[in-house]
Amino acid sequence: MEFTVQQIASILGGKIIGNASAKIHTLSKIEEGIPGSISFLSNPKYEPYLYTTQASAIIISDQYTPKREIGAALILVKDPYTAFTVLLNEYNRLLNNSKTGIEQPSFIGSSSTVGENIYVGAFAYVGHNCTIGKHVRIYPQAYIGDNVQIGDYTVVHPGVKIYSGSIIGNNCILHAGVVIGSDGFGFAPQPDGSYKPIPQVGNVILQDNVSIGANTVIDCATLGSTIIGEGVKLDNLIQIAHNVEIGKNTVIAAQTGVSGSTKIGENCVVGGQVGFVGHIRIADKTSVGAQSGIGKSITKPGTAVQGSPAFDYKENLKSQVIFRKLPLLLKKLDDLEEKILNLSDKT
Amino acid sequence: MEFTVQQIASILGGKIIGNASAKIHTLSKIEEGIPGSISFLSNPKYEPYLYTTQASAIIISDQYTPKREIGAALILVKDPYTAFTVLLNEYNRLLNNSKTGIEQPSFIGSSSTVGENIYVGAFAYVGHNCTIGKHVRIYPQAYIGDNVQIGDYTVVHPGVKIYSGSIIGNNCILHAGVVIGSDGFGFAPQPDGSYKPIPQVGNVILQDNVSIGANTVIDCATLGSTIIGEGVKLDNLIQIAHNVEIGKNTVIAAQTGVSGSTKIGENCVVGGQVGFVGHIRIADKTSVGAQSGIGKSITKPGTAVQGSPAFDYKENLKSQVIFRKLPLLLKKLDDLEEKILNLSDKT
Amino acid sequence: MEFTVQQIASILGGKIIGNASAKIHTLSKIEEGIPGSISFLSNPKYEPYLYTTQASAIIISDQYTPKREIGAALILVKDPYTAFTVLLNEYNRLLNNSKTGIEQPSFIGSSSTVGENIYVGAFAYVGHNCTIGKHVRIYPQAYIGDNVQIGDYTVVHPGVKIYSGSIIGNNCILHAGVVIGSDGFGFAPQPDGSYKPIPQVGNVILQDNVSIGANTVIDCATLGSTIIGEGVKLDNLIQIAHNVEIGKNTVIAAQTGVSGSTKIGENCVVGGQVGFVGHIRIADKTSVGAQSGIGKSITKPGTAVQGSPAFDYKENLKSQVIFRKLPLLLKKLDDLEEKILNLSDKT
Repeated sequence: MEFTVQQIASILGGKIIGNASAKIHTLSKIEEGIPGSISFLSNPKYEPYLYTTQASAIIISDQYTPKREIGAALILVKDPYTAFTVLLNEYNRLLNNSKTGIEQPSFIGSSSTVGENIYVGAFAYVGHNCTIGKHVRIYPQAYIGDNVQIGDYTVVHPGVKIYSGSIIGNNCILHAGVVIGSDGFGFAPQPDGSYKPIPQVGNVILQDNVSIGANTVIDCATLGSTIIGEGVKLDNLIQIAHNVEIGKNTVIAAQTGVSGSTKIGENCVVGGQVGFVGHIRIADKTSVGAQSGIGKSITKPGTAVQGSPAFDYKENLKSQVIFRKLPLLLKKLDDLEEKILNLSDKT
Repeated sequence: MEFTVQQIASILGGKIIGNASAKIHTLSKIEEGIPGSISFLSNPKYEPYLYTTQASAIIISDQYTPKREIGAALILVKDPYTAFTVLLNEYNRLLNNSKTGIEQPSFIGSSSTVGENIYVGAFAYVGHNCTIGKHVRIYPQAYIGDNVQIGDYTVVHPGVKIYSGSIIGNNCILHAGVVIGSDGFGFAPQPDGSYKPIPQVGNVILQDNVSIGANTVIDCATLGSTIIGEGVKLDNLIQIAHNVEIGKNTVIAAQTGVSGSTKIGENCVVGGQVGFVGHIRIADKTSVGAQSGIGKSITKPGTAVQGSPAFDYKENLKSQVIFRKLPLLLKKLDDLEEKILNLSDKT
Repeated sequence: MEFTVQQIASILGGKIIGNASAKIHTLSKIEEGIPGSISFLSNPKYEPYLYTTQASAIIISDQYTPKREIGAALILVKDPYTAFTVLLNEYNRLLNNSKTGIEQPSFIGSSSTVGENIYVGAFAYVGHNCTIGKHVRIYPQAYIGDNVQIGDYTVVHPGVKIYSGSIIGNNCILHAGVVIGSDGFGFAPQPDGSYKPIPQVGNVILQDNVSIGANTVIDCATLGSTIIGEGVKLDNLIQIAHNVEIGKNTVIAAQTGVSGSTKIGENCVVGGQVGFVGHIRIADKTSVGAQSGIGKSITKPGTAVQGSPAFDYKENLKSQVIFRKLPLLLKKLDDLEEKILNLSDKT
């Protein structure tokens, strides 16, 4: 993809100063501009880069008057940041939406149906009895088991594995290596010390607008469904155990793990590397600091916690500060003990 | 798969009250019953759901007399929980054992042999010189390198990657995205600050009845074997480093990591997100709390530890309780200091 | 691969005592020797194994005189450890370099070019407009998106997923299940509580001699590049977020996570399960203990830290020791309080 400064200025409704025929093929930050890229200047702090950037074009405020000569072409608009965001979205759309059609060899099971404008990459596998919506993109080497439903406009990146019976909503994004519907970790201890697997016959439901990061795993329910609510965003390498439910618009950072049957509320924000024990409930709008361990239910909406085991965020900070001073605290205690001994001797 | 209530009652040897020809195609919890599902009532606490469930059939005690009209068909048996488990296992068997044959395109290297009743999915790859047992299921896009042995009845889920030379026992389950036999993380520091890889030429051995969760990684040994003992159950996203050995029937929860050459005993239970340093030994029947960090060997069987760094489970709980009160403790100390100052003035 | 003791002795320039025609097909530690393997004796501590090992041949010092009869053939050399390392490297090279050619079916996009002596496994996918260097090995089921560059001698193990636009250097190793270039975790909160994805249009750059462990994920930059410096070694299951930069020859152990825009210096050593918050800078030669949480920048090169939140390594050890004794410390404080009460009564 390549555009001229002239073409971009037309899209943004901006005025050009400089070389209108310069060729643009990518976007950059102004401080990291390279020839062929377009950038923007919004925060005055970055103005010095205007005169040194290697970018071929800069989107800038129409109120701006250059103080010195500038190598880049300028596109003058009312709101440079908004204009750049428009461009960013357009660029992203072009980058990602170009794939359609069914590459060969690929495997689509009998009695499965696919919607219009679908992309199926080579070596992708769609099992039997699946319903795949329109404008869905299934990248190479993705696996979709039997009886899976996938909604419209959902993107299944390369190497995603979706076990049989899973239900995926509209507008979802599953990044490379995601596993949906693997067996829950349930075993019945036997008298001889061995463990017998408990059949895991439930499934996973992803509601609309869910985004799942690379190599994240979501286990199927023992019975019923593991449910990821509408608009939930999960980062990379996260573990979601069987029968977990995550409420609408909750966001969870990388490498966090949620144990079996735990229900997390709506609009929660969870940091990275957090662990939740099983069978607890987390209230809406809870915020959990990174590396915390959540050992019991949180019932009051809007609670902020930190620590392993976690408790009130601010209280935890106070305890952490004193933890660092424990050697001093111990010394103080020893000094007092000595003083008291001296006092006792005197009395 | 679809059965009538009549057919299921015959399997269970139960008596029917209600619609014997109702169609059943899935199982559910009574509180989450949907039309077409069969559920059970064992715990009296759940009795209210009997009158409201959408399930089409309920397995129930033959001692039970309904108090009001019930929508679902009833199947009366002696022990409803056991009867339901029989059904669950049968359903699971039907769900998972239906695949046989070799889908095309797939790749099976020359001089590799496969047993009877095998399933090889499309886009699966089996290298040269492999021995694959009978009733093995290798799902689509799985990779099996050269010189690999796989025992009977083992299931290799989609996208599993098994490096050359690995040995997998009978009745093992490897979930999607599992990696077996990747290089151990061994590098020799060089005088210029760079690192030179130390060749990792050992392999991985999984003994019988091992279950490995999705996206878990087990590195090959530098020399010799990384060994996962009989009946070991590993959850998702676990890291097992080179030359680790894990004893029979040990169970490890998700996102735990075991560093190089550490030997974990038999019948241990390890929580999620635990870390073990390298080159230590953990006694049989050790239990390790979630998010713990194990920095040294544990020699006494049956020890329970918690914390990072970990120590005795109960002692750790006590310290954690006081950790939360550190600000109070500090205040108390300051108050005492002042009192002593006052006393000193008086004497 | 199979060699006689005679052939190996010729390679090493060693003298043989025993069966020169014994067949060798693998390497072993002396204490784990199996028939058909060759081992070495360097550390005198291991001498007892010399008389019991099942190995078919032992590399040993030419100064050595056997005290008793030995089953294995002996190869006498000046420096047994160095000789064994030569053999180990040669064995490793033979094991791993045998693959060349393009297996079918595989997919190589139009206008992509591949260098000489390349290996492309079956079911591997190379997009459009890619430049793949010479002697590159792309194993089965690997995915390489459009516009990707890969340098010479790089190894892409099975099931690796490289998103469009990534740049991979020479001599890199990407282990199975690695994901390069997935979307950064960036979302703009909306007034209704939902989140809108921020387009991630940057890429990932891996410089030369980088090694990435199995199932590790490296996200692309929002704009610009996520950069993994020359000679960096990342272990398994690591999370590298968008716009992170990691300096030359830094080594990071398994399951660590680095949040967005953080810059880690050169020659750092980072333990496993560590978390770094976003937007900080870590000085060169920093060493970080396992399970630490790094919440702010580290400016002094050569700093060693530990803990969550992390501070000076030695100070942290001292605090940890006292943490274990908190119940005793509290008791001491209560005792003092009582003593003071008594003293106050007396005065």
